[in-house]
Amino acid sequence: MSPRFEDAAQKLASANDLLAEIARVGADRARGGYSRHVFTSADAELREWFAGAARARGLQVHTDRNANLWAWFGAPGVDAVVTGSHLDSVPGGGAYDGPLGVVSALAAFDLLRAEGFAPRRPLAIVVFAEEEGGRFGVPCLGSRLLTGTLEPERALTLRDGDGTTFADAARAGGHDPGHFGRDTETLGQIGTFVELHVEQGRGLIHLDAPLAVGSNIIPHGRWRFTFTGQGNHAGTTLMDDRRDPMMPAAEMIGAVRRSAAAVPEARATVGRLVPTPGGTNVIASQVDVWLDARLPEPGSVRDLVTEIAEKARAAAELEGCTVDVREESYEGTAVFDPALRDRLTAMLGGAPVLPTGAGHDAAVLAPFVPTAMLYVRNPTGISHAPQEFAEPGDIDHGTVELARVLRSLAG
Amino acid sequence: MSPRFEDAAQKLASANDLLAEIARVGADRARGGYSRHVFTSADAELREWFAGAARARGLQVHTDRNANLWAWFGAPGVDAVVTGSHLDSVPGGGAYDGPLGVVSALAAFDLLRAEGFAPRRPLAIVVFAEEEGGRFGVPCLGSRLLTGTLEPERALTLRDGDGTTFADAARAGGHDPGHFGRDTETLGQIGTFVELHVEQGRGLIHLDAPLAVGSNIIPHGRWRFTFTGQGNHAGTTLMDDRRDPMMPAAEMIGAVRRSAAAVPEARATVGRLVPTPGGTNVIASQVDVWLDARLPEPGSVRDLVTEIAEKARAAAELEGCTVDVREESYEGTAVFDPALRDRLTAMLGGAPVLPTGAGHDAAVLAPFVPTAMLYVRNPTGISHAPQEFAEPGDIDHGTVELARVLRSLAG
Repeated sequence: MSPRFEDAAQKLASANDLLAEIARVGADRARGGYSRHVFTSADAELREWFAGAARARGLQVHTDRNANLWAWFGAPGVDAVVTGSHLDSVPGGGAYDGPLGVVSALAAFDLLRAEGFAPRRPLAIVVFAEEEGGRFGVPCLGSRLLTGTLEPERALTLRDGDGTTFADAARAGGHDPGHFGRDTETLGQIGTFVELHVEQGRGLIHLDAPLAVGSNIIPHGRWRFTFTGQGNHAGTTLMDDRRDPMMPAAEMIGAVRRSAAAVPEARATVGRLVPTPGGTNVIASQVDVWLDARLPEPGSVRDLVTEIAEKARAAAELEGCTVDVREESYEGTAVFDPALRDRLTAMLGGAPVLPTGAGHDAAVLAPFVPTAMLYVRNPTGISHAPQEFAEPGDIDHGTVELARVLRSLAG
Repeated sequence: MSPRFEDAAQKLASANDLLAEIARVGADRARGGYSRHVFTSADAELREWFAGAARARGLQVHTDRNANLWAWFGAPGVDAVVTGSHLDSVPGGGAYDGPLGVVSALAAFDLLRAEGFAPRRPLAIVVFAEEEGGRFGVPCLGSRLLTGTLEPERALTLRDGDGTTFADAARAGGHDPGHFGRDTETLGQIGTFVELHVEQGRGLIHLDAPLAVGSNIIPHGRWRFTFTGQGNHAGTTLMDDRRDPMMPAAEMIGAVRRSAAAVPEARATVGRLVPTPGGTNVIASQVDVWLDARLPEPGSVRDLVTEIAEKARAAAELEGCTVDVREESYEGTAVFDPALRDRLTAMLGGAPVLPTGAGHDAAVLAPFVPTAMLYVRNPTGISHAPQEFAEPGDIDHGTVELARVLRSLAG
């Protein structure tokens, strides 16, 4: 660790200070933690905060065609070294997933500026829109649209829980959805991408280390199971006369657990389930169940989902119901650039290298540009929940090391 | 059927015409059917419509202390013959459950006025507030508060899905919740109560009859099961490390079906389930499951729920979760006044007598005043869903028969 960087850090706003500045934005009193969904007032407040913090540092701020925010250290240009993450959250999420990569980027820029660093390559921070898919179901909308991995026609018609389309929400947020889609100019500027992120598992706890370099992200996807039956009165419809879609939905949840537990390293989750109409005294007419499934190769996550879907279909048939299964998103293995990974590992004094089951914008960018990830230790091992945490000392350490990485790549 | 009544009906707004007047109010485009919840804009529009329709008929309109609407044929007074029902709905409910009893009351009053009927006893229509419990979970709030069956302290602190209390919602609807509670003056005016309602089962289809008289309502209640585990990231938390409350919730749904199916005549339903935080890529930290259970005596619905709760507890324990079970409402058997029932049956030419598994405001009033119910045939047998139906001819027939009943009771 560079003592020069550490001295500088003592005089500047640290990443911890910056986190404190946004600690109230989007706090979710009902669920605990934060609900910061794309194009909501919390999202707008965070975007405004970031733009203000960046401009106060003399960074050049602009929003790209896909609602991703950019802040440039000097003049924008090609072959840029880009860092950053996202500011949106899952519903009731933690304070670090996303924001940590943004505030440590700002603080790292402060360190570089304080030492009079003059980058040889352009240097920028990016804040991607809707990384979690917390509002419109599909994760990494900003980076997928930018890279052309997702067709804008599909993105624009996605609906949130209230029926609002992504297009209408974007418009309400001041963006022109007509411009959304593959942005070769912006993508062409990214020479290298490094995302710092809080770890979302217990790898660094077991290794007793504060920081790791990412190796890859295992294949993952989201599927929506729609069970359809016959809505009716809960008090007058005898048990034998029912076609209740809640029954196969419950069967499916059990099948998810059993199927995933039988495959080493598989993770499969039902965290979202919506009965329609959702009244206590009403047999549901429809139940929507979302399945999140992930499995390292050579296993096949799609085979796992096919097995679950077969069990769901059998359960639906038994109840006189039907089920429709739709793949909402799928990402194969994302491998971060091996040369960049090895360079960072060496630079960070032999930092451990970890795979992850969590998706990131970095994984969306990895097929297009050399990409790396840094993980900061999470002492609870819990993420996507209010208990997600990182020690202030680990955050400062991660910031200093991110600055070191940017200095080496851009210098 | 009285030909005189039928002739009059041809010249006046029928109950079918009145239903058409409110056919657009509270239509739920997302769920289908109607969502007309207490103290929402749809509810306000329906109340305004009713008050206007009643005043146009020369009826004297007022709102009682518990937000129930009243319309008097002549001067208010004690020993009144009261008819009516409710205008609120379950989420995505049908057009008839509630409104049919209100519009047929207005149309029956028209018939009585047209023939110059001068009631000996006071005669009134009542529209009860929040019969379905569609917004605050507990059904029949208006009649329970009026009769003192529910403590206002408990009602006022009930919360809807957005966290709004019943007290705040009432205030926003222009009512003073400080006045809510047992209203002996209003209750003391009711001499007899007759509620006309769409049938919510297939009894009249099997009997090939258009109208029935109610005998009793079987015991029923609502219980809230809150499963608590550990929220976490869906991609990084291995299956063995999980304490996922969705697992025992799913187990419970299966247990509800198995336990209810083993007891003749039992009905038990999970139509509402809310995971917190409810994100696709998040293992839930909490899952709330509402159980609606009903069972005729000598069976015990509470024993059935105890059996289900034991299975839920065992499933929760197996997953490292906990479960809290709370009774949100309970009603024992409601027996409608046998003398009144027999009088109506004879008056209606030996109409069939039917029990029901559906709760009604009439059941709340039954312990306090002689109470009867009339059921109009529902050719789909489906209720609490958009397919709920009554033939226009059956509605006209029910209206004429309701007028005959009111004429006999009040004349």
